[in-house]
Amino acid sequence: MVDLRPVLFVLGILLATLAAAMLVPAVVDAAMGGPDWSVFVLSSGVTLFVGIGLFLANRTAGASILNLRQAFLLTTLTWAVIGCFASLPFMLSQLHLGFTDAFFETVSGITTTGSTIIADLDAASPGLLLWRALLNWMGGIGIIAMAVAILPILQVGGMQIFRTESSDKSEKIKPRIQQIAGTILKIYLTLSVACAAILVVLGMPVFEAVCHAMASVATGGFSTEDASVGHFRNPGIEWAIAVFMFLGGTTFVAMARLAQGAPRALLADSQFRWYCTYIAAFVLTVSLWQVASLGRGAHDALRSSVFNVVSIATTTGFVSEDYTLWGPLPVVSFFFITFIGGCTGSTSGGLKVFRFCILGSVAGKQLRQLVHPHSVALPSFNRQPISDDVVRSVLGFFCFYGMSFAALTLGLAACDLDLVTSISSAAQALGNVGPGLGHIVGPAGTFAPLPLAAKWLLSAGMLLGRLELLTVLVLFTPRFWRR
Amino acid sequence: MVDLRPVLFVLGILLATLAAAMLVPAVVDAAMGGPDWSVFVLSSGVTLFVGIGLFLANRTAGASILNLRQAFLLTTLTWAVIGCFASLPFMLSQLHLGFTDAFFETVSGITTTGSTIIADLDAASPGLLLWRALLNWMGGIGIIAMAVAILPILQVGGMQIFRTESSDKSEKIKPRIQQIAGTILKIYLTLSVACAAILVVLGMPVFEAVCHAMASVATGGFSTEDASVGHFRNPGIEWAIAVFMFLGGTTFVAMARLAQGAPRALLADSQFRWYCTYIAAFVLTVSLWQVASLGRGAHDALRSSVFNVVSIATTTGFVSEDYTLWGPLPVVSFFFITFIGGCTGSTSGGLKVFRFCILGSVAGKQLRQLVHPHSVALPSFNRQPISDDVVRSVLGFFCFYGMSFAALTLGLAACDLDLVTSISSAAQALGNVGPGLGHIVGPAGTFAPLPLAAKWLLSAGMLLGRLELLTVLVLFTPRFWRR
Repeated sequence: MVDLRPVLFVLGILLATLAAAMLVPAVVDAAMGGPDWSVFVLSSGVTLFVGIGLFLANRTAGASILNLRQAFLLTTLTWAVIGCFASLPFMLSQLHLGFTDAFFETVSGITTTGSTIIADLDAASPGLLLWRALLNWMGGIGIIAMAVAILPILQVGGMQIFRTESSDKSEKIKPRIQQIAGTILKIYLTLSVACAAILVVLGMPVFEAVCHAMASVATGGFSTEDASVGHFRNPGIEWAIAVFMFLGGTTFVAMARLAQGAPRALLADSQFRWYCTYIAAFVLTVSLWQVASLGRGAHDALRSSVFNVVSIATTTGFVSEDYTLWGPLPVVSFFFITFIGGCTGSTSGGLKVFRFCILGSVAGKQLRQLVHPHSVALPSFNRQPISDDVVRSVLGFFCFYGMSFAALTLGLAACDLDLVTSISSAAQALGNVGPGLGHIVGPAGTFAPLPLAAKWLLSAGMLLGRLELLTVLVLFTPRFWRR
Repeated sequence: MVDLRPVLFVLGILLATLAAAMLVPAVVDAAMGGPDWSVFVLSSGVTLFVGIGLFLANRTAGASILNLRQAFLLTTLTWAVIGCFASLPFMLSQLHLGFTDAFFETVSGITTTGSTIIADLDAASPGLLLWRALLNWMGGIGIIAMAVAILPILQVGGMQIFRTESSDKSEKIKPRIQQIAGTILKIYLTLSVACAAILVVLGMPVFEAVCHAMASVATGGFSTEDASVGHFRNPGIEWAIAVFMFLGGTTFVAMARLAQGAPRALLADSQFRWYCTYIAAFVLTVSLWQVASLGRGAHDALRSSVFNVVSIATTTGFVSEDYTLWGPLPVVSFFFITFIGGCTGSTSGGLKVFRFCILGSVAGKQLRQLVHPHSVALPSFNRQPISDDVVRSVLGFFCFYGMSFAALTLGLAACDLDLVTSISSAAQALGNVGPGLGHIVGPAGTFAPLPLAAKWLLSAGMLLGRLELLTVLVLFTPRFWRR
């Protein structure tokens, strides 16, 4: 059996941190005259109590270093348990959400998905609106930390190539990771503050600006308004948020190198280049379609295309208008974008651009080899050859992604949801995107009308997608629990 | 440059054979008093003329053995050129189809897809109905020949594993292939005759029985009736056709071994086992849903589920009723089945079960390796370890399949077809299935109302899918045409 004590010890610390974070909306709600400040104090108390309990009960094992199995367990447990405790304010607040709805909303927040079951956000207190933005924001930095420090070591879905990359030729791996982690945190904070400031300058009220800044940089997509960013009817705000969503979907490691004085780090990164290329291609397609087929003005078409394509490509999920009314080509484009996602080591979700880079390289080499069967052409990424181990990892990841997508879609269809709703909800949940397609879960709808079972399936899908599938699935193999 | 002469020489022989085949519907149409017998004689004459011309003009190069590039060119050219000449009867007949419609119908026939643009089959002459069935039937044997003799040598999409398999430990590869080819042809003929005989016994008129037998064993799906097999309202006929579609989707090499006295060859084949398993799983799902959700009787639910699931899984495309009215879970099931397909070396299409076996093995090994990073567990197929070369081939194939699917869907959406129509038409075309989803291209509709551009896109998709993508795509690489 796996020794759970070191896992529960760390979980205790994380819950205590969550309890501290709950005091922020408590203070803000009280200051803004909201009704829910006591709810946050109570939730914080409960969370702190459990957190300290776990900490104290397992402190004897605390000093030990986690082994591989414990690292897998901790990663999955953290997100599930934080999902439970962070949903307390939703249940206790004046919205009186049931546990299913509260858990769905919380998981959607921390996984930076941004799907909501709250149909009327005007009824929510300022504290609750801030809490949703904070869940996005804390989830965002948690994801980057996981992608930079944990997943490469766990060798999940080809992420091992980033292990060698961050250790480079330097022998002092740990200080380097810590140094990069510090820089990444600074960038995350700087981007958030800059985004909020710019939004205020562009005319957004301070509270809304702070919430939208947190949800933008985290590519989370929780808005304070039912009509999302479209509510503000402000082109400047849409451009600004598009830029910060785009940055949120960019590898933070490369941005950290940039900040540390390696200006070419970002431009030389093939993942970043393909990220830019594919977004530009879809923006162009959707813009041209809007001009040609809907007769929109060029500037208007470009802005709305940039905003909504970047929002879905970075898996943020903000919307400026109901793009499902734009016609077949945009709808199909948004459907495919849902699967791709942003760069790895960013706050975004989806299959991630680097996996498509590897897939593309393998496929390209295959096509070459057909004409010259005896030439050996190894696939590469970032001008480095990729080992067959990584190729198998990536192939395995695509397989699990496809299987999870099919299983989730079939599960949702068994809940009597139509084809478009099932298929798009499953895709957006696994990719942590936010809106689906169709009149229920589309950009103009919410997930509120879905049956309970569908909400649980989607919550599971969001966690599964966020934890890069294998981190969770490995826990369900008998081998994991064997001595 | 590639020397085209040996390619055109073989093409000439194949066209002459096609011309001979056209005389069959000519005779039958004349015997049944149809109006189109002269059309077939004329088409046959034109085809024979061109065929003999190519044969004579290139006979000096005829004796030379084809090199790799010529083999690629010949494979693709054969299907495209036969598609053109075999569409002559559709254009000249009383249906007066345009070239687009005639080419679509012909390609749909020879690729054993079974999508039709003829909305009213009652208006078609017996000769034309027989010609459609013959296209299915000739396409079917052509596909098996290609999968057994050509694609393994071209190393397309992981097919190289079947090269070593058919050569085994015997050194005399060629006589063995010829022997197996002879047995396969015998099996194909026996199955066709048996199917026709059984259908006649079960009450189908002889002409319809022959046509349906050819379309069943070839997993083609062209029916003589607008309502497809549902027209006959005969449970016995549905069960019989289901059995022959199932056999058509089974590896003919394994059936040949069975016929040669190796009874375990089929049962030991992991591809065949997974083929049975996945079909059984979907039949069970759809049957239970029909009983639970639609309140159908168990026997009725089972028969309709078996018939339609087997029809789509084997990529035949016969329908007994409009299964899109059964509700979300069956619709989503049929959508996913469209991608899987039957066994390789059969007449069916899709991604093929063996690629999923390899994908599953790679993924399973990945999950194991996460807990024991230093254990080396190579993926396997049929109890044989798979080389990384094959893994890369399969990964590349999935990549090209996904890209072709996305490109085709986007192209169809650009023709203003809605999401469900675009996505399901693209999937069915690449998988050579037949019916799509939605009210236009669904089991109750036809492809007739689609715009011209969409018909060309789908024709290209059917050819691309049938030729296992890479065989065609390699022709578009500059490297192919370089010295």
